[in-house]
Amino acid sequence: MTQKQVVVIGAGFGGLTVARSVRHADVVLIDRTNHHLFQPLLYQVATAALSPGDIAWPLRTVFRSQSNVRVMMDEVSSIDRAGRMVHLKESPPIGFDILVVAPGARHAYFGHDEWEPFAPGIKDMTDAVRLREKMLLVFEETERRRATTDRQDGLTFVIVGGGPTGVELAGALAEIGGKVLSKDFPSLPPDALSIILVEAGPRILSGFDASLSTKAAHALVRMGVTIKLSSPVSAIQDNGVMVGTEWIPSENIIWAAGNKASPLLKTLSVPQDSSGRIIVRPDLTIPDDPWIFVIGDAAHCPGKDGKPLPGVAPVAIQQGRYVANLINRGTVPAQRSPFIYKDRGMLATIGRAQAIAQFGPLHVSGLVAWLIWCFVHIFFLIGLRNRVRVMLEWVWYYFTFKPGAALLFPRRSASPDKPSSTDNSRT
Amino acid sequence: MTQKQVVVIGAGFGGLTVARSVRHADVVLIDRTNHHLFQPLLYQVATAALSPGDIAWPLRTVFRSQSNVRVMMDEVSSIDRAGRMVHLKESPPIGFDILVVAPGARHAYFGHDEWEPFAPGIKDMTDAVRLREKMLLVFEETERRRATTDRQDGLTFVIVGGGPTGVELAGALAEIGGKVLSKDFPSLPPDALSIILVEAGPRILSGFDASLSTKAAHALVRMGVTIKLSSPVSAIQDNGVMVGTEWIPSENIIWAAGNKASPLLKTLSVPQDSSGRIIVRPDLTIPDDPWIFVIGDAAHCPGKDGKPLPGVAPVAIQQGRYVANLINRGTVPAQRSPFIYKDRGMLATIGRAQAIAQFGPLHVSGLVAWLIWCFVHIFFLIGLRNRVRVMLEWVWYYFTFKPGAALLFPRRSASPDKPSSTDNSRT
Repeated sequence: MTQKQVVVIGAGFGGLTVARSVRHADVVLIDRTNHHLFQPLLYQVATAALSPGDIAWPLRTVFRSQSNVRVMMDEVSSIDRAGRMVHLKESPPIGFDILVVAPGARHAYFGHDEWEPFAPGIKDMTDAVRLREKMLLVFEETERRRATTDRQDGLTFVIVGGGPTGVELAGALAEIGGKVLSKDFPSLPPDALSIILVEAGPRILSGFDASLSTKAAHALVRMGVTIKLSSPVSAIQDNGVMVGTEWIPSENIIWAAGNKASPLLKTLSVPQDSSGRIIVRPDLTIPDDPWIFVIGDAAHCPGKDGKPLPGVAPVAIQQGRYVANLINRGTVPAQRSPFIYKDRGMLATIGRAQAIAQFGPLHVSGLVAWLIWCFVHIFFLIGLRNRVRVMLEWVWYYFTFKPGAALLFPRRSASPDKPSSTDNSRT
Repeated sequence: MTQKQVVVIGAGFGGLTVARSVRHADVVLIDRTNHHLFQPLLYQVATAALSPGDIAWPLRTVFRSQSNVRVMMDEVSSIDRAGRMVHLKESPPIGFDILVVAPGARHAYFGHDEWEPFAPGIKDMTDAVRLREKMLLVFEETERRRATTDRQDGLTFVIVGGGPTGVELAGALAEIGGKVLSKDFPSLPPDALSIILVEAGPRILSGFDASLSTKAAHALVRMGVTIKLSSPVSAIQDNGVMVGTEWIPSENIIWAAGNKASPLLKTLSVPQDSSGRIIVRPDLTIPDDPWIFVIGDAAHCPGKDGKPLPGVAPVAIQQGRYVANLINRGTVPAQRSPFIYKDRGMLATIGRAQAIAQFGPLHVSGLVAWLIWCFVHIFFLIGLRNRVRVMLEWVWYYFTFKPGAALLFPRRSASPDKPSSTDNSRT
């Protein structure tokens, strides 16, 4: 018999794991970019602690030695279940025997998409580099203004969402404010910078045990972050955000709340949940189609507690392994045992030597948790090169507080009236 | 007496050296970017061997410990000699007692500026990242086309200019073609790629001894590069270039010939040479103004042989030290000994374990020259961090041929009809 054709959509943690684990079948891995992105560290690119190249890995080199995998840089426009075809933006359609759908998610604004331009989020490298550009430019501009004029106004960052991303961003910004600004921007003392973390719920990091949430909150406050709990956002404009009944003026608002699964999933025409995820069956397939799998952030898959599993790397990776096994063994639906997520624990970092970790009953915080966090993240990075680079950057930053990736490049294409505007896009 | 105010325009090798060496005076260092760029390795960013962060260094961290230096990210619009002022695009004008003008140069098209869009050059990070984007995209597109359709057309790169930059680019591209393409782009065999190096003069690397030029040419040919000598370019369009009487079809033309000094220099209203450089006096000052210095690529400064010194880092660095000494000692014009360039030798690399070096009578080539080249470039990089990163990248690339910086990022702002076009701007 001829080899089965497996098409994998998306090279995130889930899709990458499938493509690396499938044997004895031809795999076509499709992604809009040419690299795998280590999303958990994306906020460090956004805060200039790491360079894009440190947490991204070219797919072609990842699969160089795996001859059954073909990498395609293209975007899937729709999935034709009946015809067993995926339609692409730039190439002819590709047929499949088995399809793995892992397109991930984007940030969502609870029906207020008009907020996006004023409160960007960070889901991919484009977002992260844009945010870094904005942060560095506003530092430079404020320094220039305070140094050359008598306007001594400060700088306020508002981060919406007290989940891991929001907390890690707030911590990283506070670190820059406390340690970098004062050294590098003489006219911009730390007290000129205020960082406000806004959470609609009663506590931050609600996925963690309450005691750890409290520890994290205390650590953030010690670093100078203002935390506003039970404070839903009701309006965002270019010059500020309405939090509860309070208007906070700020031109630097970052969105770290809410996800929406890829619009591509609609073309499967099967039931989706409120945030656009496909409600998958216990074997991660879609209804009535045992060889179309949906995994990662795109899948609504209930955990032990009945609540859908969180959109984190370990879930996507374990789902990828599970699906790859079914494919490798050709297990028919009747013989499939349901996917069960093994929760190996949760980690969140707040800043330098500050983190919380929860392994079932075991709770750890402070330096030890931070070291565990560093180790785990280094370990899960793909490839020796990136591990060494990231470790080097962290050690370097830990001792010097010199962010190596704080780069702004000139935009020559800028309009003549704003010639020294920069293009941080380029970094 | 109050401290003298020294204004330095440009944070290239010359300007950076002055700012780092001046003592007992207030220094304002102005640059359009926020970093110092190690230009000699820019072609490695353009060919995805290094990341932008590897060869760029944030100015504020460079001068963190030097309290007499203030860094300003802005663009100088004009110099007012009479009023002892520099006028800036975004800030109020700044007065100076002593001015050091080191704005560098851009590539020039011998009066054919209409060629630029079809044959970009690489002078700054924006150029380099753009070129990398173009190269990676054309690889991806050709691979996609050859894999999914029956169009098996090849890929031709034309590099105009046989100086060090052109030679290093040609070598790096040939390396990618030979070692990377075949491994990462299965549908794109090395023979599908042709690299043509075009030189108007009778030999490449004319700055070197003829025997070394020949060695370099042989090395390039062995790597698969086609060299066309005595071949002036007479026309460049979006689909090809006219070389002598031959039309070479190519959509990938890179400009590595000709420089033009910064247009800012005109505002000094003193004599300039044909490529816009200021014809400086023996002490690197402009006529009738002993405290306005012009150094680096912006200065026309005759060497021993009477020919103007080349626009290379060692010249700019030595000029920077010379000027800093005059400033530190307050040497009056009558007591100044003229600037004399100490030529410590020339290096050019062709590719992996391939380089040529010329130290006066001593000529070296091959692996030894390449190791010297590596050592010298690592040594002159600023800061331990970048040294380690670049060394790591080179060792890694040397053994694996996996370029770590081959990254393309999605451009969401793209027009809906070309959604999977990418924004390599973001890298």
